[in-house]
Amino acid sequence: MVGASGYAGEDLVRLLLAHPHVDLVAVTSRQFAGKQLADVYPRFAQNEKAQPLKFTDADPKQLAREAEIIFLALPHGLAAEFAKPLLQAGARVVDLSADFRTTDAAVYKEFYGKDHPAPELLGQAVYGLPEIYRERIREAKLVACPGCYPTSILIPLRPLIRRKAIDRKRILVASLSGVTGAGRKVEADYLFAECNESVRPYSVPKHRHLSEIEQELSILADEQVVIQFTPHLVPVNRGIITTIYTDLGKDVVDLDPGLLFSGAYGQEPFVRLLGDKRLPDTKNVVGTNFIDIAWKIDKRTGRLIVMSAVDNIVKGASGQAIQCFNLMRGFPETAGLI
Amino acid sequence: MVGASGYAGEDLVRLLLAHPHVDLVAVTSRQFAGKQLADVYPRFAQNEKAQPLKFTDADPKQLAREAEIIFLALPHGLAAEFAKPLLQAGARVVDLSADFRTTDAAVYKEFYGKDHPAPELLGQAVYGLPEIYRERIREAKLVACPGCYPTSILIPLRPLIRRKAIDRKRILVASLSGVTGAGRKVEADYLFAECNESVRPYSVPKHRHLSEIEQELSILADEQVVIQFTPHLVPVNRGIITTIYTDLGKDVVDLDPGLLFSGAYGQEPFVRLLGDKRLPDTKNVVGTNFIDIAWKIDKRTGRLIVMSAVDNIVKGASGQAIQCFNLMRGFPETAGLI
Amino acid sequence: MVGASGYAGEDLVRLLLAHPHVDLVAVTSRQFAGKQLADVYPRFAQNEKAQPLKFTDADPKQLAREAEIIFLALPHGLAAEFAKPLLQAGARVVDLSADFRTTDAAVYKEFYGKDHPAPELLGQAVYGLPEIYRERIREAKLVACPGCYPTSILIPLRPLIRRKAIDRKRILVASLSGVTGAGRKVEADYLFAECNESVRPYSVPKHRHLSEIEQELSILADEQVVIQFTPHLVPVNRGIITTIYTDLGKDVVDLDPGLLFSGAYGQEPFVRLLGDKRLPDTKNVVGTNFIDIAWKIDKRTGRLIVMSAVDNIVKGASGQAIQCFNLMRGFPETAGLI
Amino acid sequence: MVGASGYAGEDLVRLLLAHPHVDLVAVTSRQFAGKQLADVYPRFAQNEKAQPLKFTDADPKQLAREAEIIFLALPHGLAAEFAKPLLQAGARVVDLSADFRTTDAAVYKEFYGKDHPAPELLGQAVYGLPEIYRERIREAKLVACPGCYPTSILIPLRPLIRRKAIDRKRILVASLSGVTGAGRKVEADYLFAECNESVRPYSVPKHRHLSEIEQELSILADEQVVIQFTPHLVPVNRGIITTIYTDLGKDVVDLDPGLLFSGAYGQEPFVRLLGDKRLPDTKNVVGTNFIDIAWKIDKRTGRLIVMSAVDNIVKGASGQAIQCFNLMRGFPETAGLI
Repeated sequence: MVGASGYAGEDLVRLLLAHPHVDLVAVTSRQFAGKQLADVYPRFAQNEKAQPLKFTDADPKQLAREAEIIFLALPHGLAAEFAKPLLQAGARVVDLSADFRTTDAAVYKEFYGKDHPAPELLGQAVYGLPEIYRERIREAKLVACPGCYPTSILIPLRPLIRRKAIDRKRILVASLSGVTGAGRKVEADYLFAECNESVRPYSVPKHRHLSEIEQELSILADEQVVIQFTPHLVPVNRGIITTIYTDLGKDVVDLDPGLLFSGAYGQEPFVRLLGDKRLPDTKNVVGTNFIDIAWKIDKRTGRLIVMSAVDNIVKGASGQAIQCFNLMRGFPETAGLI
Repeated sequence: MVGASGYAGEDLVRLLLAHPHVDLVAVTSRQFAGKQLADVYPRFAQNEKAQPLKFTDADPKQLAREAEIIFLALPHGLAAEFAKPLLQAGARVVDLSADFRTTDAAVYKEFYGKDHPAPELLGQAVYGLPEIYRERIREAKLVACPGCYPTSILIPLRPLIRRKAIDRKRILVASLSGVTGAGRKVEADYLFAECNESVRPYSVPKHRHLSEIEQELSILADEQVVIQFTPHLVPVNRGIITTIYTDLGKDVVDLDPGLLFSGAYGQEPFVRLLGDKRLPDTKNVVGTNFIDIAWKIDKRTGRLIVMSAVDNIVKGASGQAIQCFNLMRGFPETAGLI
Repeated sequence: MVGASGYAGEDLVRLLLAHPHVDLVAVTSRQFAGKQLADVYPRFAQNEKAQPLKFTDADPKQLAREAEIIFLALPHGLAAEFAKPLLQAGARVVDLSADFRTTDAAVYKEFYGKDHPAPELLGQAVYGLPEIYRERIREAKLVACPGCYPTSILIPLRPLIRRKAIDRKRILVASLSGVTGAGRKVEADYLFAECNESVRPYSVPKHRHLSEIEQELSILADEQVVIQFTPHLVPVNRGIITTIYTDLGKDVVDLDPGLLFSGAYGQEPFVRLLGDKRLPDTKNVVGTNFIDIAWKIDKRTGRLIVMSAVDNIVKGASGQAIQCFNLMRGFPETAGLI
Repeated sequence: MVGASGYAGEDLVRLLLAHPHVDLVAVTSRQFAGKQLADVYPRFAQNEKAQPLKFTDADPKQLAREAEIIFLALPHGLAAEFAKPLLQAGARVVDLSADFRTTDAAVYKEFYGKDHPAPELLGQAVYGLPEIYRERIREAKLVACPGCYPTSILIPLRPLIRRKAIDRKRILVASLSGVTGAGRKVEADYLFAECNESVRPYSVPKHRHLSEIEQELSILADEQVVIQFTPHLVPVNRGIITTIYTDLGKDVVDLDPGLLFSGAYGQEPFVRLLGDKRLPDTKNVVGTNFIDIAWKIDKRTGRLIVMSAVDNIVKGASGQAIQCFNLMRGFPETAGLI
């Protein structure tokens, strides 16, 4: 586990410590090197598996020797630099950063403002959304875990796009995210007194996550998809609500979204379909790896509104990483997650 | 002031007590009748003007004798019943409920689920949005103050609709509201532990406020307008963020929203135009009567995104009522509000 | 599980569903009778063990037939009425209410304002604080789980009282509790907008929990102990911080609180000693069954300040109940809790 | 107004802009020099008096020429450096920092960890608590506004100490403060996700404010007073609740705290006495310059519990500064504050 000083990293440590089939051998953090895990994160005090763990400064070669699978929870840019030697040394890597989510170095540069540090690896990475890429994740050497917003958007949209139920040119998304979504950034904008009693849109109109969202939607649609996406910051620690406005496809009559969604996700262990009678609430998913999905057809406008709730840290990061890990190692997909 | 036991009523009392040209002669509340104002609302203790005020049970005839202008902050249905005798007795009424916002009794019944209690008055009421109906408010006997969501939606949309800058068939709105928006309802859904660390959409797809929003947009457009509107509940006390997605009108080229908005609102005392560089934040408007408006043209999608922030209790209720009152009495429009 | 409609009851269901040695056979609630568990608590949707569970109206005789151990999460007064027939029918009972915490019916009447409904059972109950009564809990027919404040106060004070390290006449306690401490009471005082951005003391100077706190301290001291206790409500969902001010005992010299506490609690699975360098924070215990304890000797005043943090719902209710249950059934004490 | 980049400074600007007798001529901030006031604080947009104001880098000599009274809202240490040339140039200074609150350079060094930068000025400063030093403030050249905790503690204790109603050796204080109390410090401890859903004591047992609290109590008692003080951080933006535990004085019989408090504060414009039936709540004072005081005699323990609520930013900083300013200039003491 490389880079455990952020919120996603800390939560991934929590899940790894509780996982029945995991032996967590190393936890690294430049900032905390030399400290006991439980000194930095008091929640882990008196956790038996956490006792021997001390933060180290990451040494890729040694990590590759010690661990079969290595999780990277590093800032983008840095993650790719670490992934390279780890993969060369034969380790398998689950990366939580944005570095390998897009397959196109030009798109990376457009959205992240710098050259990709390891473009030669872009082709190797599998986008770590089990609901779409389950089989490829099993064999992957390098898994790029999706961002939290993309998870909350792609899972609901996938069956609608695939079945051509909606107009791909008219997808508009409003998302509301808790403050951990920004990571543990020590910036004035994220101080308690700046976020509490505050609600605000941000990164309008071009949030970075659009790069991976549109990439994946375009693959599903087999044509270029461009969407409207507006994220908002709301004063909760965790949780994302995503509300998606879609126009029904031109030739679509008598769409039954319930049938469509249960056909697509009836067997998915972490997708809960709320139907068209209930609405999602972040408090039902926080701390879990579930995504809750609800929908309403609005007869007045002819639109289909789809809403989802996820914990941005779990299904949006740490839990998704564990779900991928379980697939990679052949464990039950829900191991350590339910 | 009739019905001062809700959040908007309490805040209206605050503004009336501080207003330089107001002599608040009576405060009524069935629930609190007989109690001192300051006993119910400790914030008003040691306020000189509040000292003599005691809640009474409302007697319309006596109220009409005592006061020139009467504010109603009552649940819908009840407000209309009170307004009738007050108007007959010659008083002017500023109503904060939904009873007179729509001019059509059938629409009222569709959205509020019961027959309108005083349909004969519907024609008399003026919709209390000074940014649209300033002149008519001056002379009005009966002002129907807009709801909080409509305020946050209609002000930004008005110049865009009037100037045909956008496609009226493709207006989609996501709003995020603080919990006082639900009023002081003692229901489990609004308990602290149910709202805190919770984010959720509600009333999808047909919120009651659509009745007045679409009525006013249709008047502005001079044709029937139907919009998509999805409200969300977020854990702040006060404040609404509204994000409006619009398609530019078919023949619109080189739209300059800044020019459009400053033409429409450059002289408005309570409209602050943030432009396309800054984004609204509820914390900048809470406690004030301002509406902050920002916009972005998204070149990728050809859409215009307009965002607004208001305090649902002030510009969305009590402050708007005072603004109307100032117009009705010929006081400076900002009296008691800045 | 009788009475699962409050916060503690809901959380106990969560722990029982996840417990490796528990087969939850019945969940009752007058309010929710007939509904699926997952319909009332969406968090439990897609939980396999929750699927078959439907709320029933509690029938003591049938419950006693179906279950070996019955948890009561009922309002005080009602709990005693249920416990009677259950015990008669041979079941063992873990009661989360206040009904059996005090052994004296007169004290019950003084603090709870009504006659005890089953005084004949008072002698049978064991106070469910494993850190004090572990052995007696193992054999108990009726366990009275302590209140949340008493848990946060008694565990830190126990070794200090027992070792006569502090002056028993000068114990002053300030506690800060999250809003779930009030239960799921649908009252205006606990609405979001009344609790958010609010901090307030309450039940000063005589909170009900004093009855059990002073009873247990008096047993430990072997003489009557009366303390000062001031609870405060703070806007978090869960968590209690308790700050205890003590005067050192008259003949005490060179007290080493670290030695004292580690002697008393070094082997306790759910007591974490932070020492005199770190301070407790509710966020480190929320969701867990741990109590964190820290202390400072103030040389300026000669006092010993002891501070603790617990999750009022877990170690203060549901988790403590499970801990007792584990003891009663001979399971590892930490089963289902770590 | 020197140093307007913190929360107290920002709020002082708000009050100065609204003050009927103030002409705010300069606002300085190293960080924001060159920016418009309204660009940094969007709340002040469209405020007429704020329009011409631009942050400058502070030049003491020029400030002394332009302004009669200069407010300093600077970090401790820096404030004293600025005060010196300002006073020399003949200006009167209201300082919100801790630099001149204690009259003893040795105490300053003990609590603030460095030598006092202008010990020669210590004798000149008047402690800016109008409820104690009203007359001296009128004539003062240099006013040292009290800290927020001291305000919440000294006002309630003053009459009790002066009338020897309580045992001066047994004063224990628990305070609960909102996060703005820490200032606009960009540190990880004050990030939203670290403070939200967190409650924690801090600076135990020796908080810096003890220096001024004990100094003032000792003056009132005419002998050395040492108290116990434990502050706690709670997740609200603003507000302090202080709970004071006192033993009644040895020879005190039939104390009537109501009589005592109304004798001392019956005429004070900003002290509201809640009596022994109601309890304080921060939400009643937030945004105001009031201090609410309540008390309870506990017959079980013979103690007197006194509780207060203030807004740490207003009565604890900006409002108190204005109150002092009004006294210094001979304006009504409540000008700009009610």
